[in-house]
Amino acid sequence: MNKIKAGIVGGTGYTGIELLRILTQHPRVNLVCITSRSEVGQPVSNTYPSLRGVVDLNFSDPGSEELKRCDVVFSATPNGVAMQHAREFLAAGVKLIDLAADFRIKNVEIWEQWYGMKHACPELIEQAVYGFPEMHRDKIRGASLVANPGCYPTAVQLGFLPLIESGVVDVTSLIADAKSGVSGAGRTAALGTSFSEIGESFKAYNVSGHRHLPEIRQGLEWANGAPVELVFTPHLLPLVRGIHATLYATLTTKELDLQNMFERRYADEPFVDVMPAGSHPDTASVKGTNTCRISVHRPQGGDKVVVLAVEDNLVKGASGQAVQNMNLMFDLEETAGLTQVALVP
Amino acid sequence: MNKIKAGIVGGTGYTGIELLRILTQHPRVNLVCITSRSEVGQPVSNTYPSLRGVVDLNFSDPGSEELKRCDVVFSATPNGVAMQHAREFLAAGVKLIDLAADFRIKNVEIWEQWYGMKHACPELIEQAVYGFPEMHRDKIRGASLVANPGCYPTAVQLGFLPLIESGVVDVTSLIADAKSGVSGAGRTAALGTSFSEIGESFKAYNVSGHRHLPEIRQGLEWANGAPVELVFTPHLLPLVRGIHATLYATLTTKELDLQNMFERRYADEPFVDVMPAGSHPDTASVKGTNTCRISVHRPQGGDKVVVLAVEDNLVKGASGQAVQNMNLMFDLEETAGLTQVALVP
Amino acid sequence: MNKIKAGIVGGTGYTGIELLRILTQHPRVNLVCITSRSEVGQPVSNTYPSLRGVVDLNFSDPGSEELKRCDVVFSATPNGVAMQHAREFLAAGVKLIDLAADFRIKNVEIWEQWYGMKHACPELIEQAVYGFPEMHRDKIRGASLVANPGCYPTAVQLGFLPLIESGVVDVTSLIADAKSGVSGAGRTAALGTSFSEIGESFKAYNVSGHRHLPEIRQGLEWANGAPVELVFTPHLLPLVRGIHATLYATLTTKELDLQNMFERRYADEPFVDVMPAGSHPDTASVKGTNTCRISVHRPQGGDKVVVLAVEDNLVKGASGQAVQNMNLMFDLEETAGLTQVALVP
Amino acid sequence: MNKIKAGIVGGTGYTGIELLRILTQHPRVNLVCITSRSEVGQPVSNTYPSLRGVVDLNFSDPGSEELKRCDVVFSATPNGVAMQHAREFLAAGVKLIDLAADFRIKNVEIWEQWYGMKHACPELIEQAVYGFPEMHRDKIRGASLVANPGCYPTAVQLGFLPLIESGVVDVTSLIADAKSGVSGAGRTAALGTSFSEIGESFKAYNVSGHRHLPEIRQGLEWANGAPVELVFTPHLLPLVRGIHATLYATLTTKELDLQNMFERRYADEPFVDVMPAGSHPDTASVKGTNTCRISVHRPQGGDKVVVLAVEDNLVKGASGQAVQNMNLMFDLEETAGLTQVALVP
Repeated sequence: MNKIKAGIVGGTGYTGIELLRILTQHPRVNLVCITSRSEVGQPVSNTYPSLRGVVDLNFSDPGSEELKRCDVVFSATPNGVAMQHAREFLAAGVKLIDLAADFRIKNVEIWEQWYGMKHACPELIEQAVYGFPEMHRDKIRGASLVANPGCYPTAVQLGFLPLIESGVVDVTSLIADAKSGVSGAGRTAALGTSFSEIGESFKAYNVSGHRHLPEIRQGLEWANGAPVELVFTPHLLPLVRGIHATLYATLTTKELDLQNMFERRYADEPFVDVMPAGSHPDTASVKGTNTCRISVHRPQGGDKVVVLAVEDNLVKGASGQAVQNMNLMFDLEETAGLTQVALVP
Repeated sequence: MNKIKAGIVGGTGYTGIELLRILTQHPRVNLVCITSRSEVGQPVSNTYPSLRGVVDLNFSDPGSEELKRCDVVFSATPNGVAMQHAREFLAAGVKLIDLAADFRIKNVEIWEQWYGMKHACPELIEQAVYGFPEMHRDKIRGASLVANPGCYPTAVQLGFLPLIESGVVDVTSLIADAKSGVSGAGRTAALGTSFSEIGESFKAYNVSGHRHLPEIRQGLEWANGAPVELVFTPHLLPLVRGIHATLYATLTTKELDLQNMFERRYADEPFVDVMPAGSHPDTASVKGTNTCRISVHRPQGGDKVVVLAVEDNLVKGASGQAVQNMNLMFDLEETAGLTQVALVP
Repeated sequence: MNKIKAGIVGGTGYTGIELLRILTQHPRVNLVCITSRSEVGQPVSNTYPSLRGVVDLNFSDPGSEELKRCDVVFSATPNGVAMQHAREFLAAGVKLIDLAADFRIKNVEIWEQWYGMKHACPELIEQAVYGFPEMHRDKIRGASLVANPGCYPTAVQLGFLPLIESGVVDVTSLIADAKSGVSGAGRTAALGTSFSEIGESFKAYNVSGHRHLPEIRQGLEWANGAPVELVFTPHLLPLVRGIHATLYATLTTKELDLQNMFERRYADEPFVDVMPAGSHPDTASVKGTNTCRISVHRPQGGDKVVVLAVEDNLVKGASGQAVQNMNLMFDLEETAGLTQVALVP
Repeated sequence: MNKIKAGIVGGTGYTGIELLRILTQHPRVNLVCITSRSEVGQPVSNTYPSLRGVVDLNFSDPGSEELKRCDVVFSATPNGVAMQHAREFLAAGVKLIDLAADFRIKNVEIWEQWYGMKHACPELIEQAVYGFPEMHRDKIRGASLVANPGCYPTAVQLGFLPLIESGVVDVTSLIADAKSGVSGAGRTAALGTSFSEIGESFKAYNVSGHRHLPEIRQGLEWANGAPVELVFTPHLLPLVRGIHATLYATLTTKELDLQNMFERRYADEPFVDVMPAGSHPDTASVKGTNTCRISVHRPQGGDKVVVLAVEDNLVKGASGQAVQNMNLMFDLEETAGLTQVALVP
């Protein structure tokens, strides 16, 4: 079988190295090009000694023509970069998966407001498919341009989806109290993510409004077919990998088997694991894997449902989901290259 | 000025050593006795090398008569121990501050149900004062028996109090998403708090019901003068000290200056710091101090209020608050011995 | 191709779960039995939610006959257990790989002195092969009973080996200052490895003598063909996985290309990576992999050589090396099942 | 009693905030001025919320005349800044304590070589006193300009001193394997100290040569009265505060009571604690304190001595020792303001 030729734009960040980790072990992928503006010509393994003996490539220039000869390109760049080059790749027949936010929001005004820049190719937004397989698997299969979901939005949507699709919660009561490991902030030198500042600390941030809020709301409104109201509170955890979303909603009906509802919703999903009733998933149980692990509670039998959802923000919340999308786009086994077992302890 | 003679029952746990840290630096306290069943006769500094040169005492037997000659005894034992000895201490004229839960809940049936044991001296429950200075300062001043609040209940109540006292929230909408450092679980050998299990992980626990729920509800109902409904979700943080409570409620009125409401409520409180509008307190900023730091948000100007409250679970959430209570009981400066500056970074 | 039938005795510890993680992804292994005295009949995935959907087995009784029908059994039990059952397994034609210390030391008196027990089958010690492929690859190929090396001894021996084999250091000058992550202490409830005790701390332990000292000395003496003297100082790191050995020796000759010596020694070793001159390997770069990464320094061109060696204590320091030994014993590709890429960040 | 007027140059770094923490609790100090080039006019408590309600000052310009009216100025700036202003301060009769390296090395050529810059006032180097009270207490008492020792040099010298002064070790055999918490790298945005890079990792750095090497060597040579040879290997620990130095030397005499030697050497030192024989000090036991805790071992009764020394790098390794020096310079109680108890756990 021919292998898929894959390229990565922006290979020095954490989603870039995570793509390398996954793609080098993918049975059907041939990684041919990885770019970095700052490290052109340098061996990838100089930046990441963990890849010594695993990746032999040198970083290419982001303008490399090699990318145009790929079957698929992953854009692992900051927000606002992929939209500069999307037309070119599509014109060259290259499928594009953007791990940043450029094509996630359908309403371009909302996007421009939250991301503080002018969109470079608004005409492509409609064509882009939101790469959330648990909702849009069929559309992804036929897509040329996929907007890979954000890390928080993946966990929060997976946790709320069964409730909203079933119409059993007050959609104005939604609260997502979410906690993320530090790698979600990317590979940057910043005081706010330096070890001494946050190594033995915990706090909320962007409580007044985080860019993932409109993305989550959009997804939940698709599921609901009508507007929803959501409070989204992100927090920074003193650990490297992992997101834990604690979700709250008010039930509108009392006669419910929530456990069964969740199990049925995700029965055929290879990467969503509904735990037994009464469980508390921990982030470590998904470290390095593409699994989102969920449990559902109804404390004291009251009218509030509490959903706990964990994922590895760099895998199911980013690069793993991107590969899952690639698998769908190229008609491969959906789990190909994504069967790693969590690193526990 | 005469010094207050103080004793500690159960000195080997974390609230015990924290009492030692605070009391040895208290200008008006003479620590005369500290007990430990397992370490009788051993120097305290053998168990805690950090106290070498600071504490010269040896551990006494818990039955030591020396305790009866104290002015005040702190009981830093597991739940169910203080109630065995409370009558004796009070009869001997010794004031008793219980850092465990024995006297926190006024309704003995509820207490027995949540704590799974028969109460040994129900007749003392009424007499006990809930040692929460921000609500009960005057009663504490005259108390002989103080029930020191739990760690979660301190942060959660301080965060909700201004809202409930002002009557501006729907009291059936309360949600407390709380995160605690591991020291809250005490000084015990347990797989669930071992470094390898939780050092790079995060999870919720006891979502179906935690013992601090009835205590929080009782306190909020006192403030409300009527029942309230609360969902309380505790989580375990991979750090040693610190609690962060993220609190949610639905506002019943829109015209509100929440910032001003919180600032006024705590203007005279020495240990509650309302941060400027838009702030996000972090747990590190209160490490080692008796301060609870709070900020209040109203995301997107909607109908939900979000309160962030941080404390050091071993200080304001336990031993520091116990000393604050002692200061009130003995008519000392309320801040005596509690002026440490947070250890940052 | 027929798969190898493998069993694990003692599957609930960290080396046990790590064997599960590796063997379930091994292309030539069929895991048929895993035992646990305390969890008989329980699904493995109840103890380890990370294995939900990966391992379908239930724990068997340690006396299970199924083990005798295996081609190979891994003993992942505490010291002193494997020696009770070794004869039985060998008699049944089952190859045995002991991850504990029972067969590591050839001198039974030294073993009994350091491990504080009588050896149960001293006659098997001679037959056992020390499973250190970089020294004993050929013997391992023909072995029925393999003593898998300890975690510290693996890193320390790999770091010293080129120097000792080349005869360029004073063998009475050896110092191994070694630092280990907490998972090396195993999956036990112990105050000394609880998060609150060690989460923000660092210390040495067993400086007067650690059980791995005689094992390291034995290995280095084999390489040297004569006695060596070694100071070995273990320390406990506040991280889960990783050993860093910092090794010191006095050079007896000045005209040396140490970098070249190390590169040549390990040129054909699939799991030893000699880094470029001037490098500093970090433990994260080998997390989850079977690689030992080494660099060699000669500060200020003096007469001391400093070797830095890192490994994942649960992989190359335990379960990964055990699988490497199995691969040799069954004439498989030595790297089969051991090609995971490190989880970075 | 009049209070000492103190100023701090460079108040936003970690040694600056640590000076604030200590000096605001010092009974004899009045902190009148703190400067920061980047934060002029801003309240100190904006940068450090932990100081809300504790420090009321705003940051001044580094050129502030207020500094000249101080009795003492602490320079908590990067290397190379204090030497620009030292003459001015001394001319104005202000005593100067430099927490950086400008005046630590007596040989200006060696200093310029290691620090890569031209010294701005070499004539002051001779006059500067190395602020290491355990060796130079009397000189410090009369000093106007004190060079506060580096963090590593403090622990390493305290550990080696008794051995070298007693002449019982081969001074060409010295090895210092030292491990430091991340706060030692200062308060800067750098990839190399970001949480995701080092939060679950450990490595050595600068093995070929670290700037603290010549400082340590100079101090040990003063004690020895002759040259010494030292290998110094620094490592980065995944914790915020704490240094652990593991020191090795070859004994030249066998009949020795090392425990007694260390206890006698430090019997009158208020900030050096020699632990009982067989102990292993941990860094947590000195967190937030000015104590260096030491134990001494002789493994297997051999010819190597192993010394373990721990300190808080920001206190005894920096700001605490600076205040200890100030106390000596102003004839105060040496322990004034330095009686904090370690924050454990």
